[in-house]
Amino acid sequence: MPKALFYDVFGTVMDWRTGVAREAERLLAPRGVKADWLKFADAWRDLYQPSMEEIRSGRRPFTKLDVLHREMLEKIRPQFGLQKVPDDVLAELNLAWHRLDAWPDVKQGFARLGAKFLMAPCSNGNIALMADLARRNGLRWDAILGSDIARDYKPKPGVYLAAADAFNLKPNECMMVAAHSRDLEAAAQQGLHTAHVTRVNEYGPNTGEDGPKTKVDYAAKTMIDLADKLGA
Amino acid sequence: MPKALFYDVFGTVMDWRTGVAREAERLLAPRGVKADWLKFADAWRDLYQPSMEEIRSGRRPFTKLDVLHREMLEKIRPQFGLQKVPDDVLAELNLAWHRLDAWPDVKQGFARLGAKFLMAPCSNGNIALMADLARRNGLRWDAILGSDIARDYKPKPGVYLAAADAFNLKPNECMMVAAHSRDLEAAAQQGLHTAHVTRVNEYGPNTGEDGPKTKVDYAAKTMIDLADKLGA
Repeated sequence: MPKALFYDVFGTVMDWRTGVAREAERLLAPRGVKADWLKFADAWRDLYQPSMEEIRSGRRPFTKLDVLHREMLEKIRPQFGLQKVPDDVLAELNLAWHRLDAWPDVKQGFARLGAKFLMAPCSNGNIALMADLARRNGLRWDAILGSDIARDYKPKPGVYLAAADAFNLKPNECMMVAAHSRDLEAAAQQGLHTAHVTRVNEYGPNTGEDGPKTKVDYAAKTMIDLADKLGA
Repeated sequence: MPKALFYDVFGTVMDWRTGVAREAERLLAPRGVKADWLKFADAWRDLYQPSMEEIRSGRRPFTKLDVLHREMLEKIRPQFGLQKVPDDVLAELNLAWHRLDAWPDVKQGFARLGAKFLMAPCSNGNIALMADLARRNGLRWDAILGSDIARDYKPKPGVYLAAADAFNLKPNECMMVAAHSRDLEAAAQQGLHTAHVTRVNEYGPNTGEDGPKTKVDYAAKTMIDLADKLGA
């Protein structure tokens, strides 16, 4: 049994797609912008991996996700007719990622899991972003681990190892929990236990992984199911 | 008004002296060690600043406090007749710092302060240490900031600045809360607001600062008094 659970956040704990779409509509629709807000969220998210890849590859020094999100937003600005939207509104829109709602099973599942295990995000989101999401959703993290403390982005090995080390634990005393097999595969390669949680609606109805695509220690349907499986 | 409160922990939030003395007695007395346990705590703590100074000066790469504490313990071993105490007991004793109790006003004060402000330790203690203390004492931090994320030790400027940056805040949107004027002076030099909380019994009865020895924005008697003064 692990002592600490590390969570992927975007997609696994938080429903980023409907949250970003809701915030975009709230801030842009009153300014006359018309868009398919879910497609707007998807377009923004599409630039996520290429943006981090600049840092993972070493071509660019570590830069926190809030800054990358703002740059990604700049890139999709013409495509969605946002050229005339003022900077302060775009800065506010960038905080859409701080205002996501957790999937409905998270609060109850985390109350049980947190009573038994150390709990930390091991996310590519930066500390301020994770702290705001936790406050909004009433989640209690023992610490915020992930990209900011590792100064790199998952799935680079150092991000998982820095998280374990921050808790004075060996990798095999930790478990990575994610809805994405790539993340779990990378964590397993560093010696962490792994648990897959299905989020089939992450990118829209029936779009997410309906189960692990790699060998995992646990495959759960929800955080409540994970709590059941871990005896929490 | 600041948006975030950063706390010194050892002495300001936690009563390290009686906690370390209690753990030392619990683990060493059954092995026949006789000592003035409070003096043992003091001797251990006396090596704290010189140990960190090696890192602050750049003579040694950043090393987390749990490791420094273990080295400091090694140094006082002969003085307290601990040569024959086995390594696993000393490793357990090193966790004394993870098992401190908060001063009696902290829980109630933090409940109010945390409802109004982002809350984080900006301590020289490492993440695992801060996480264990928070769990033991039922405290909720928004994130664990301080030495581990700055890779340096207070009062070096970078530690305060890294804490503000982690929350996406400017230094003047943050307030350092400490029982030690030196810490507050260093924070103020970086542009943070400051609040002094008196801990007159930190090193024994009537030994701590009975008020700020430097200019501060707030001088409080307890965390409850601080909550009153900040309208929390």
